[in-house]
Amino acid sequence: MRAAAKKAASLLPSLPILGWGRQYGRETLISDLVAALIVTIMLIPQSLAYALLAGLPPEVGLYASVAPLLLYAVFGTSRVLAVGPVAVVSLMTAAAIGQHAVAGTPAYWAVAITLAFLSGAILLLMGVLRLGFLANFLSHPVISGFISASGLLIAASQLKTLMGVKAEGHNFIELTQALILQAPHTHGLTLVVGVLATAFLFWVRKGLKPLLIRLGLKARLADVLAKAGPVAAIAVTTVLAWALDWKGQGLKVVGNVPQGLPPLTLPVWDLALWQSLAVPALLISVVGFVESVSVGQTLAAKRRQRIEPNQELVALGASNLSAAFTGGFPVTGGFARSVVNFDAGAQTPAAGVYTAVGITLASLFLTPALHFLPQATLAATIIVAVLSLVDLRILKRTWGYSRPDFIAVLATMLTTLAQGVEVGLVVGVAVSLALFLHRTSRPHIATVGLVPGTEHFRNVLRHDVLVDPQILSLRVDESLYFANARALEDYINDAVAERPSLRHVVLQCSAINDIDASALESLEAIEHRLRDSGIALHLSEVKGPVMDRLKDTDLLRHLQGPIFLTHFQAITFLSPQLLRKQGMGPTLKP
Amino acid sequence: MRAAAKKAASLLPSLPILGWGRQYGRETLISDLVAALIVTIMLIPQSLAYALLAGLPPEVGLYASVAPLLLYAVFGTSRVLAVGPVAVVSLMTAAAIGQHAVAGTPAYWAVAITLAFLSGAILLLMGVLRLGFLANFLSHPVISGFISASGLLIAASQLKTLMGVKAEGHNFIELTQALILQAPHTHGLTLVVGVLATAFLFWVRKGLKPLLIRLGLKARLADVLAKAGPVAAIAVTTVLAWALDWKGQGLKVVGNVPQGLPPLTLPVWDLALWQSLAVPALLISVVGFVESVSVGQTLAAKRRQRIEPNQELVALGASNLSAAFTGGFPVTGGFARSVVNFDAGAQTPAAGVYTAVGITLASLFLTPALHFLPQATLAATIIVAVLSLVDLRILKRTWGYSRPDFIAVLATMLTTLAQGVEVGLVVGVAVSLALFLHRTSRPHIATVGLVPGTEHFRNVLRHDVLVDPQILSLRVDESLYFANARALEDYINDAVAERPSLRHVVLQCSAINDIDASALESLEAIEHRLRDSGIALHLSEVKGPVMDRLKDTDLLRHLQGPIFLTHFQAITFLSPQLLRKQGMGPTLKP
Repeated sequence: MRAAAKKAASLLPSLPILGWGRQYGRETLISDLVAALIVTIMLIPQSLAYALLAGLPPEVGLYASVAPLLLYAVFGTSRVLAVGPVAVVSLMTAAAIGQHAVAGTPAYWAVAITLAFLSGAILLLMGVLRLGFLANFLSHPVISGFISASGLLIAASQLKTLMGVKAEGHNFIELTQALILQAPHTHGLTLVVGVLATAFLFWVRKGLKPLLIRLGLKARLADVLAKAGPVAAIAVTTVLAWALDWKGQGLKVVGNVPQGLPPLTLPVWDLALWQSLAVPALLISVVGFVESVSVGQTLAAKRRQRIEPNQELVALGASNLSAAFTGGFPVTGGFARSVVNFDAGAQTPAAGVYTAVGITLASLFLTPALHFLPQATLAATIIVAVLSLVDLRILKRTWGYSRPDFIAVLATMLTTLAQGVEVGLVVGVAVSLALFLHRTSRPHIATVGLVPGTEHFRNVLRHDVLVDPQILSLRVDESLYFANARALEDYINDAVAERPSLRHVVLQCSAINDIDASALESLEAIEHRLRDSGIALHLSEVKGPVMDRLKDTDLLRHLQGPIFLTHFQAITFLSPQLLRKQGMGPTLKP
Repeated sequence: MRAAAKKAASLLPSLPILGWGRQYGRETLISDLVAALIVTIMLIPQSLAYALLAGLPPEVGLYASVAPLLLYAVFGTSRVLAVGPVAVVSLMTAAAIGQHAVAGTPAYWAVAITLAFLSGAILLLMGVLRLGFLANFLSHPVISGFISASGLLIAASQLKTLMGVKAEGHNFIELTQALILQAPHTHGLTLVVGVLATAFLFWVRKGLKPLLIRLGLKARLADVLAKAGPVAAIAVTTVLAWALDWKGQGLKVVGNVPQGLPPLTLPVWDLALWQSLAVPALLISVVGFVESVSVGQTLAAKRRQRIEPNQELVALGASNLSAAFTGGFPVTGGFARSVVNFDAGAQTPAAGVYTAVGITLASLFLTPALHFLPQATLAATIIVAVLSLVDLRILKRTWGYSRPDFIAVLATMLTTLAQGVEVGLVVGVAVSLALFLHRTSRPHIATVGLVPGTEHFRNVLRHDVLVDPQILSLRVDESLYFANARALEDYINDAVAERPSLRHVVLQCSAINDIDASALESLEAIEHRLRDSGIALHLSEVKGPVMDRLKDTDLLRHLQGPIFLTHFQAITFLSPQLLRKQGMGPTLKP
């Protein structure tokens, strides 16, 4: 019984709803309801559009926006994250399923459901095993490059709908070629509607908010209204398409969207399919998690709240599993909708529950009104949304700041454009890890000297410092491990060969955060070799955790003299004359 | 003309022979000749044995010990390295070729020649591109675990010859199972010869040298004579096999070994074969290079000489290419023979040339005498040689010193035994890299305080230090990069939440050797968040290279106050009362 009670108690932090749910009051309710209304209006066109982007019937987008919101409200730690279909994950879904089924078929939908199931299972497992830190291996430049390239890919894939032609391709080059080949078959009316919708939506983004403010609206309300621009575009073009019989003139409309609640579905239980979907599902999980957590953290910080990444994994896992059982496809916390939810004043995840109710009502009653919605309008919605994700300034910024980061961005972008999302992501991670390893394998080693009048030591090449010709003071600016241990050996060998008067080598270990077994062997070899030449090796400023491990090693037994707490003490001990030179005298004993 | 002269000059450091060759005198000649004689006697049985281990006819071992020695003498930087067939590389050769041809056939030999060619080309390319540092990614524990496991694999593979049965297997478990199944068919005479030879060779290793010293020989000569034990075993068992007609009683002998010079051969020009041999050739190259360089460096250090790893790549590349064109198989610098060469007094690579002459004479005139050499004797030679490579103490040593290193050794050993040499090596490297990344992704962060009476700051948890409650002094013991940037954010968020009186956070950057673009974004986010809470972020002891890159960033523009040269200056500036407390007073200005 006590064990059970304990277990129940340990479950508490896993159910954040128990935290905010208890203090839920009238004021919070109203804030949440208002936010939910605005988000619902925004989500309807977005959900339809992203379902089409993923190659699925539009209503699937609505299905994927109901159950996941409910589950996230129970398990999620962000107060304002809105979970549902998002652009990049929809693109990755299309890329993953494309190899297994033809878009638009029931088989395709079944694979999408299975992908959501696998992705949910992976997220849940990562959460339970507390593997959230793995997402840190996606560096900011890689994410940034990946999102930008994905944005370009998505925009390119929507151009065919805007032009009213058929054009397929697995990467940016193939897509562009297909579009150029199809250009002569462009459907005039579709293009006009699409281009006008796109232009309108761009204007809504840039020009509507200032206009509304000038008309006397409050900044926040103007902002929220401007976000509803896509709904206006959809309403207007749908009414025009119906009134002017655009469908009869060859313009593609969404067509019949089934009315009703999200269906109950099951993933396909086929081990071979699971195996071939495992890697895409993993990539979708990681990308979805990273996008969701970064949005969640940004928004939480604005209100001094915190989110717990491992619990977020559990929440997103539950959301995706629920998507799989209610006819949806992979979902995650979206940037745009979460920001709108936040700006509209959502206080708790209950806003998500109300949004889910709103979407359910829409899929029950609103779908017949969507029949005449031009597909070109949805394409315009997507294009405008994703082009805001494209940020090529990251290239310039990283070029100026750090060449390896620049290479990682560029590699991620180019491979994503040329080889698709999955290859792009894997290459990006591999390149950034390889560059990190390459850098740490060539550590910065500085010969240091005493800054006059202080107890501080700095690089002899950069500062005007005091040195004793009998002492070589070295600072290694990297933890010592197998990949760079040899570099230190080489540096010391060369330095010793150059200085016949040398009697002491002092390693200032302030930047050495770890010494692994390989590096320990190297240090022992260095000590041995120096001793043979009549030179003593000393260590100073060895950090606590490093010292703890060195304690029982041969290295420490062989060292002459103590390990110095500070480099200054070492030099005071080994070279009192240097101290007299700067008029301080040896005031400290080692 | 001048360009050609310059080119010739730049070739000079690539031809070490021009260095020592010019000063070659009579005394050096005698030293080298003596060493060459001893090494030749030792090499003959070893070369035969390793060829059999690789699945090749015994004479191929002799061929592989001629041209490579000559080429190494021209290009190598070690004075005493002896190049030729070695145990681990022979095992890897057998593993690589086994998938392509049946051992003992001409096709098998052709693949071995091709493998030597590819391995030579890879080594040469790595040398020209100066990629010698790549070998550093093989950590000492991985190498040690790999060599030990390979030794066990080789010993197990030789037991069948010792027992006179047929037993094949791709890994330790399969080999052991096959041996147990075949045990009833053991050939008695073979086993007796094999076991006695093994026992004799073990005794030679341990007991002969002390005995010889007691008999009045000098230690060094006794050592060298003890190394000639295998020759004695071979001579005695060969004579006995001939005199007592052991061959007629079913004991396997080496049989006819063709007389003559190494043949001229060409690798197979088959792109498909090259592709499938590429990975094994790469692994053989890296393992061979690492073994060779570590032997070379150990011996060079004893005489205060140096070897140049990238030039060693060129030399080993040339050696392997020459092996491919003279009927050999992959070679590298061997441990045992190089030590013997060194101990016997070799002064220059000319000793290698004389050894090559000795082996050539042996393959011209000695091979008929090898007909009755029992294969069990060769197996005994191999077993005794490789068991000295097995060092299981590395498990205990790394267990005590560093758990990640222990895991890397264990993973390498177990996968090598269970899955063979190639998988074992790749898994070992992958595991050690993953553990390194895992460690750096969770940096050690210490809250530090002033050591009274000094200008030095240490961890508040480990030392008795002074702190100001308004100031949080943090030292991050790791470079900041994408995988650990979030950990710092989390640490600071938590620390700030705990201390309402906080007004300053000072990051002591002495251990931060690099800040990549992701970490810069994190620092900017930290600064922004702290500023919102009325807390100022400061940096101290930023290293030169890091400072150079931070100069033009938003982070530095947003920071209030200067970047402090020392952490002491920062605290002096921000908290003069702390200084008064320790009776020093603010003597320094930032």
